[in-house]
Amino acid sequence: MKKSLFALAALTMSGANVYADEGMWMPQQLPQVAKQLKAAGLKLDPKTLTQLTEFPMGAIVSLGGCSASFVSPQGLVATNHHCVYDSVARNSTPEKNLLADGFLAKTLAEELPAGPGSRIFVTTEVNNVSEKVISADVAKLTGKARIDAIEKNQKTLIAACEKEAGFRCSIPSFYGGLEFYLIKQMEIKDVRLVHAPAEGVGKFGGDTDNWMWPRHTGDYGFYRAYVSKDGKPAEYSKDNVPYTPKHVLKLAKDGLKEGDFVMVLGYPGRTNRHRLPSEIAYTFDFEYPNFVKGSAETLAIIANETKDNKDANLKYAGMVANINNYYKNRQGMLDSYAGSDILERKTKEHADLKAWVNSNPKTKAEYAADIEKIEAIYAKRDATAKKESFLASSYPRFLGTARTLYRLAHEKAKPDAERRAGFQNRDLPRFKATVDGVERSYDEKVDKALVLNSLVKYAAAPAAERNANFDNAMGIKDGMSKVQLQTLLDQMYAGSQFGDKTFRASWLNKSVDEFKASNDSFIKAAVAMFDEGMKREVADQESAGDMQKAYASYMKAKIAYMKSKGQAVYPDANSTLRVTFGKVASRPFGADGTTWTAFTTVKGITAKATGTGEFNAPANQLAAIKAKDFGKYVDPVLKTVPVNYLATLDITGGNSGSAALNAKGEFIGLAFDGTLDSIIADWDYNKASSRSIQVDLRYMLWQMKHVDKADNLLKEMGAE
Amino acid sequence: MKKSLFALAALTMSGANVYADEGMWMPQQLPQVAKQLKAAGLKLDPKTLTQLTEFPMGAIVSLGGCSASFVSPQGLVATNHHCVYDSVARNSTPEKNLLADGFLAKTLAEELPAGPGSRIFVTTEVNNVSEKVISADVAKLTGKARIDAIEKNQKTLIAACEKEAGFRCSIPSFYGGLEFYLIKQMEIKDVRLVHAPAEGVGKFGGDTDNWMWPRHTGDYGFYRAYVSKDGKPAEYSKDNVPYTPKHVLKLAKDGLKEGDFVMVLGYPGRTNRHRLPSEIAYTFDFEYPNFVKGSAETLAIIANETKDNKDANLKYAGMVANINNYYKNRQGMLDSYAGSDILERKTKEHADLKAWVNSNPKTKAEYAADIEKIEAIYAKRDATAKKESFLASSYPRFLGTARTLYRLAHEKAKPDAERRAGFQNRDLPRFKATVDGVERSYDEKVDKALVLNSLVKYAAAPAAERNANFDNAMGIKDGMSKVQLQTLLDQMYAGSQFGDKTFRASWLNKSVDEFKASNDSFIKAAVAMFDEGMKREVADQESAGDMQKAYASYMKAKIAYMKSKGQAVYPDANSTLRVTFGKVASRPFGADGTTWTAFTTVKGITAKATGTGEFNAPANQLAAIKAKDFGKYVDPVLKTVPVNYLATLDITGGNSGSAALNAKGEFIGLAFDGTLDSIIADWDYNKASSRSIQVDLRYMLWQMKHVDKADNLLKEMGAE
Repeated sequence: MKKSLFALAALTMSGANVYADEGMWMPQQLPQVAKQLKAAGLKLDPKTLTQLTEFPMGAIVSLGGCSASFVSPQGLVATNHHCVYDSVARNSTPEKNLLADGFLAKTLAEELPAGPGSRIFVTTEVNNVSEKVISADVAKLTGKARIDAIEKNQKTLIAACEKEAGFRCSIPSFYGGLEFYLIKQMEIKDVRLVHAPAEGVGKFGGDTDNWMWPRHTGDYGFYRAYVSKDGKPAEYSKDNVPYTPKHVLKLAKDGLKEGDFVMVLGYPGRTNRHRLPSEIAYTFDFEYPNFVKGSAETLAIIANETKDNKDANLKYAGMVANINNYYKNRQGMLDSYAGSDILERKTKEHADLKAWVNSNPKTKAEYAADIEKIEAIYAKRDATAKKESFLASSYPRFLGTARTLYRLAHEKAKPDAERRAGFQNRDLPRFKATVDGVERSYDEKVDKALVLNSLVKYAAAPAAERNANFDNAMGIKDGMSKVQLQTLLDQMYAGSQFGDKTFRASWLNKSVDEFKASNDSFIKAAVAMFDEGMKREVADQESAGDMQKAYASYMKAKIAYMKSKGQAVYPDANSTLRVTFGKVASRPFGADGTTWTAFTTVKGITAKATGTGEFNAPANQLAAIKAKDFGKYVDPVLKTVPVNYLATLDITGGNSGSAALNAKGEFIGLAFDGTLDSIIADWDYNKASSRSIQVDLRYMLWQMKHVDKADNLLKEMGAE
Repeated sequence: MKKSLFALAALTMSGANVYADEGMWMPQQLPQVAKQLKAAGLKLDPKTLTQLTEFPMGAIVSLGGCSASFVSPQGLVATNHHCVYDSVARNSTPEKNLLADGFLAKTLAEELPAGPGSRIFVTTEVNNVSEKVISADVAKLTGKARIDAIEKNQKTLIAACEKEAGFRCSIPSFYGGLEFYLIKQMEIKDVRLVHAPAEGVGKFGGDTDNWMWPRHTGDYGFYRAYVSKDGKPAEYSKDNVPYTPKHVLKLAKDGLKEGDFVMVLGYPGRTNRHRLPSEIAYTFDFEYPNFVKGSAETLAIIANETKDNKDANLKYAGMVANINNYYKNRQGMLDSYAGSDILERKTKEHADLKAWVNSNPKTKAEYAADIEKIEAIYAKRDATAKKESFLASSYPRFLGTARTLYRLAHEKAKPDAERRAGFQNRDLPRFKATVDGVERSYDEKVDKALVLNSLVKYAAAPAAERNANFDNAMGIKDGMSKVQLQTLLDQMYAGSQFGDKTFRASWLNKSVDEFKASNDSFIKAAVAMFDEGMKREVADQESAGDMQKAYASYMKAKIAYMKSKGQAVYPDANSTLRVTFGKVASRPFGADGTTWTAFTTVKGITAKATGTGEFNAPANQLAAIKAKDFGKYVDPVLKTVPVNYLATLDITGGNSGSAALNAKGEFIGLAFDGTLDSIIADWDYNKASSRSIQVDLRYMLWQMKHVDKADNLLKEMGAE
């Protein structure tokens, strides 16, 4: 899967198979599902897993977007190849193509800087601060006042927590704003690339195999954490030394087989398991189909506008790859949704919840009004979103940039602490990078064609369905033809110097008055939209405050209802540390006419290898397979080296690079993907079809030992 | 599979699973395997299947290259879509594209001529004439005299048999010349196209899916046999009437499920199961690798030479498709062979046979010398073939044509009965068609490039390794460079008018003297090569006579040896009527990471459909699938309509269109392909991997009823 998008798998809470459950459990929740963990085969005491600073949880880290784990006392970190990909790319040159050839540091001195943004976050504390965030006085508030008070309490708590240098603190919300946890993480800033196999191993199968089974991807790579000599996080320095983690994962001695217990520890990004039926309907009946349709148009326009312009083509390559990835994801979800009873089931579940609430005067008094309220808020929000579905794509890119810069000018006029989050001094480098970087992904002709395509549809709606603020700033009037809109855009683009990098950057430091005095067409439009935009923002915050209150209450009702049925409720994924457990499992249906076995083997690499492109397995790997140079990594049943395996684990984007552990808590591979018909599980877990894909530790070790000769790392990890 | 090439599957003779056997059994042999037939589940008396003119065998017919069967009392014939393909193509126009849209005659009047070459052969008699062909006096002969005498006896028997008008007789040899059967077939010449589904059904998956599983091809089509009003075979006439077959297959009422008995009745083309180890080694170590290498070169040369010449490109499209098909086939066999113990096993089996022969003075006296002789003959033949491996591809196409025409001139000087088989008056129309048709598949530039590529390799060998006759005719001398060979070819091609169709055709009727007087370069070369060519032919016939004698003896020894072990021996396929039986069976290994289920379903069509090219499922079919408009054709286990199914049946090219029957002898589909890793079974049956692919009758009927509205045919077949 791609880093920020992705799929998952799991086991349901109730029903015949009690050995494992659907769920991305907070570690502290595990005693609630101790029975299921034991039935699934866990040999450790579930309580062990609740200790974040003990083994094995103490070895699990976040890379921010990916998950990872310490696998040696010298701070060696194992994660996915696609999580170290940018570091490998950054260190590659046409002469020394590390992506293509792979990279192996034989000594510490040969290790390479992973890149300026690379971080390793080691969680050191997690505390429930719900009552500090929603304090007694906050609980009484509604609307914008409530949101402002919550934000203020969070800022205060974070500021206190971050007093210790080298730590980053955050207060994510759980159960949709019902609970808040203060999470303290050591932020290791000196991260170095240690090893990545050749792309023909680490990304074998490329986009073709992405989200697919059978799979043969050696999706692993290694970083090392460095700290100052006194053991503190520090910026890159040649004097830094490897970090000594408190805990390290041990390599499993025995391989897995079908039916074995397996768990994955990592930082899943985002799921939507606790959504209302109306949110499901909006998403699958409107938002995703709309996205798929719009993406197809966008791709066609980019292809057409850049077909004779290699430079523009390259500039939009990233956007095209990104759209394609989401396109495949969304279409995959729509395909799964089409044949399913998800909406029916969610509707019934919600109705059952409401019936339970209303069956008792006490619960009715506590929850009924809030549930109605959240339904009403969503109905209104979705209606607005439908109305404005062409609005976002009708903005010229530089109008967006201009609006952001003008907002920044306003915020900068305030003391730092009072500014809106995201516009503080700590955010300025990001603004500069974004404004400077536009060059690499922008072409005026393409941008204009994309905007025009959307604008024609937007403008075709009656005025009441349109956004008056946008219309006024752009000069859009009822009944404008395509030609008139084209003329409007031509004038607007011609009237701006935003295409000039220096000009654009200059506005990072200008005052509100300077903006107001400008004749630049995009700045004029941004200034014109400001007041109404701020009103909208306030209205949105009013709504957000009410939403937080009502949604938290709805989730509280749901938890109480499930508890009444004897079931625990895990919160939706929010990029915090979670545990999912299940089994290594084949699947009785694959592509029509096939089933899926639990393991793939190196035989499949040979069968898929084409010597080029996405299936370019290295010659020395193919030779080792042909020669059956497998050493001790042969599976006793498969009679060859296993490559990837399927498991019933509940993972999603963000879990990339997560350690997979066996029943004894030993390292047995890395989660890196789910299958296309499993990604619907972000919304609705399907026990029969959901499968996560892991790279087998035996394949990693075999490739490192017999092909890449990474004996130094094997020794360091205690593999020999 | 393609018509003339193909794969198969089966069940082994001995071992744990006694329910079915490897084998393409002659119907009269079935009582020998009655126990296995019964164990496999056959409900009919095996003796029933030995009656060629009774039910069900009486319903089985040959199309010459394909198999088929009568499915209505009005002479309706069911076979594969790829067997009626040429008839559909011939009746298609740019305005009325029957291939793309499918064709359905709603009345007899709408049925279309299938094409001049289309025939339906109904076998009416099969008699063992071994003792008439190898009569007591022939048995004493060796060499050319023996071959001539055999040919003479065959001609006499055939002439007597063909006295009845409308019948065609032949005497194929079985067990490599040990036995001969006189086969009498009614030759129905008025064949009409009745129905073919759209190409997006009948050829769904195209070359991509050819020899593959999972498969979703509706590979069926219908002809109708017409005869004169008095019931005799006759050329096409609007006064002809539908033929009334003696027996007709009945449609099965119940669908198949995994494990069910199934048998296929048809005309398999050719297998090589009884080959000597040396023949295996020659084929897999030399011939096929050589073919694969040469094919790659040929394809590259054609691609290069035709890349700017659309006309030439089209002319060679047929050859390219043909080479690609064989290329995939041969490479598939080589892949299977590479990981196998075939040669070891065959070597051991042969050694065991010889040990058995030598263990007894009687068998030693009878067979030992002949076995040694056949080994020696093959060794010599293979050595020559290796030496001459570049010879055939070094002939300019028109040199071959000229040699054939010159030979024809010689033969025509004799009375018809004395001419070499293939040069008689009955063969003349074929000669004319070939000589006329060259235009459609020939381009001088391409031909010359192909010849030069081969000739350079041929000429690089020392003179002793070359063919002196060819060298003399072509002017090839030791050590010629590529440039010299190019010049030689340029002169030769420039010195001939064979590119002119009228000129070429004129030589169909010229005398030997006229050939001798010609200055055309190709004719001069053909004349120059004639005498030595005839000597070579005589030598080959000498060898063939000896080979027939020794090989028949070797097979006789093998049959006696197998009989001593209680096992029956089926003869290699030779395009005569055979029965194979087995089970509907999934396979525990597919592509690495998958297994194969026994059935595919219409779900897979929707999943594969792209709306274009090879996977262009018709919109009305997709709509019917989406609407679950399945009627009574839903499988109770699969919950949808099955499309294709796998079975352990021993079939090969020529079986295309063969009826698949259930345990009661009812029609349950059509065999149409084998899987790529099964085609090695043409040489060596592999019980674990061999699977034949059939189209499920339920899919045929569903498509005809719910999509194509072929109610008239369904009624005629008794489907409703």
